[in-house]
Amino acid sequence: MHPTKTQGKAGRFRGDPATAPPTTLRQSRDIVTPALSAALERLDETSRAQARYHLGWTTADGETSTGEGGKAVRPALALLSARAVGAPAEVGLPGAIAVELVHNFSLLHDDVMDGDTLRRHRRTVWAVWGTPSAILTGDALLALAQEVLLESGSPYAADAGRLLASATRDLVRGQVRDLAFESRTDVTLDECLDMVAGKTGALLSASAAIGAVLAGAPAATTGALAAFGAHVGIAFQIVDDLLGIWGDPALTGKPVFSDLCARKKTLPMTYAASQPGPAGERLAEWLASAEKADEAALPEIAALVAAAGGKDWATEEAGRRLRLAESALAAVPIPDPPRDELVALGRFIVTREA
Amino acid sequence: MHPTKTQGKAGRFRGDPATAPPTTLRQSRDIVTPALSAALERLDETSRAQARYHLGWTTADGETSTGEGGKAVRPALALLSARAVGAPAEVGLPGAIAVELVHNFSLLHDDVMDGDTLRRHRRTVWAVWGTPSAILTGDALLALAQEVLLESGSPYAADAGRLLASATRDLVRGQVRDLAFESRTDVTLDECLDMVAGKTGALLSASAAIGAVLAGAPAATTGALAAFGAHVGIAFQIVDDLLGIWGDPALTGKPVFSDLCARKKTLPMTYAASQPGPAGERLAEWLASAEKADEAALPEIAALVAAAGGKDWATEEAGRRLRLAESALAAVPIPDPPRDELVALGRFIVTREA
Repeated sequence: MHPTKTQGKAGRFRGDPATAPPTTLRQSRDIVTPALSAALERLDETSRAQARYHLGWTTADGETSTGEGGKAVRPALALLSARAVGAPAEVGLPGAIAVELVHNFSLLHDDVMDGDTLRRHRRTVWAVWGTPSAILTGDALLALAQEVLLESGSPYAADAGRLLASATRDLVRGQVRDLAFESRTDVTLDECLDMVAGKTGALLSASAAIGAVLAGAPAATTGALAAFGAHVGIAFQIVDDLLGIWGDPALTGKPVFSDLCARKKTLPMTYAASQPGPAGERLAEWLASAEKADEAALPEIAALVAAAGGKDWATEEAGRRLRLAESALAAVPIPDPPRDELVALGRFIVTREA
Repeated sequence: MHPTKTQGKAGRFRGDPATAPPTTLRQSRDIVTPALSAALERLDETSRAQARYHLGWTTADGETSTGEGGKAVRPALALLSARAVGAPAEVGLPGAIAVELVHNFSLLHDDVMDGDTLRRHRRTVWAVWGTPSAILTGDALLALAQEVLLESGSPYAADAGRLLASATRDLVRGQVRDLAFESRTDVTLDECLDMVAGKTGALLSASAAIGAVLAGAPAATTGALAAFGAHVGIAFQIVDDLLGIWGDPALTGKPVFSDLCARKKTLPMTYAASQPGPAGERLAEWLASAEKADEAALPEIAALVAAAGGKDWATEEAGRRLRLAESALAAVPIPDPPRDELVALGRFIVTREA
């Protein structure tokens, strides 16, 4: 197998329809959603209602909602990672619930910190119920994640809990750096990649290994799966950054050019602003400006990022990370059906449009 | 042994100097502080600096500080709880670090939610570095707590982690209720006690049991220790509430009458406002007012709480909880030196002036 090479009009990779992973994601959601819902029953009524709203299951008034939830890539990885070592998907289920809870804890807190009022086309929890609610609901989800894992009855529960706690700390570290970038004008590409490895890579890495850890797999295998997830995680964030500039807001659910508007040091932007030549220099100057970004100028800024090579570099880097992910996987014996699904899920992450 | 009966001028119990627990607290701090400091080394530089400042170890500029930290009652309980089942204090050490980390996670987040700018005579982390920093440093401490516990190598680490995660969820539930009380005028004493059982009782209960859990003690013993901690926790909060009204701000480090100023539904206030008669009725009316509290009127409000019996009830209730705590302990075989220290620590909590 080799990574897909043709590029779509947004400059990203097109997946092979034969390995289209929505099936994997849907099957995983069918297993995970009821278990996640059952886990949320332990929360106090207020936090539970806010968590269910945040997940897209209800409206703010508590009515059943047709709103979309997340893609649930992390729980799908967790189930696949159990199957990758010959265990039934169910062995990975507590891990799948736990990583999805940690992911949503981080979204709830990030929305507060970034002041974002919209996520997945809907108002964020802090925008509806206030900052304290979003902090507490996030806290409750983080505690619940460990509880679900440690109650799984797996003899390897403590190992899985340790993996999750360590990934959570890395995730927080990434967000700390991301926030620090806001007040800096000298962020390097390496620093930006390190931030992304924490903020997005760490939890995807843990997701891709946690099912295997719960199944008691040897360290070489869990390590390979963790490396697969870490590379896929960076590719995931690169694509997120690309979609934030050139994606369709109707599909992504994010306001158009919101990253540019916030002068965010995303990967394509950081690459572009570090390039010699007029486009890169103009971007570096614009990033350093303290004034509120002029919305009318944002299409021009996006064009400068492309002109300075930010779009091409990011597209290629996402492809390179995907190849690294697939190489990591190739180094250990993994039965074919889950291996194919892992590879397809990685490709989907790089070709998705939302 | 029986609880001390004489009351101090603030209407609280005086401890027996022969069982003065500052020695226990100091000895515990001598063991816990270096281990806690080592655990903090894993955090990113920013979160670590903020955590060390929050703990009173440094100034905001990172200079070594002579500022006081907390009393560290929770880690002392954790070490005692290992000794209570015949294990060395060191067996409880990962638990001691973990409960202290969870406690400080909750303080960091609570200060954001309550908008408190001062704690222990110093500016709070969000007041110095902003809300996102306080959220992230809190998140990092919570993740680190589980990590320390699950890396302890104890065969009972998963049990201890589960206990801690469940206590954290209860603590969050308590804070959710406390916040909900702000916009209500019909809070009952039972609801208030339930909130306190979560917000303060749950983590003290876990602290008093976690060392024994790490030592693999039988459920009857860990249950008795947990019950001891839960009762002591409620007594602890009652005394906190009393000190918030009648304590010496120079000792407590909190601005005078801050709870009253915020019209907080503390236990003595909730009791007093539910009493028939002019004082209780006047308080209920005052609590229901939406206007900003008039600071000049606060001494009169404090006097009304006392006149309606709030001070006496709270003082008696703290004593009653202490007796319940001691009865719980009496029901299981615990060797004498740690038993005495547990009892003395409980009494100290009820007689402290800060």
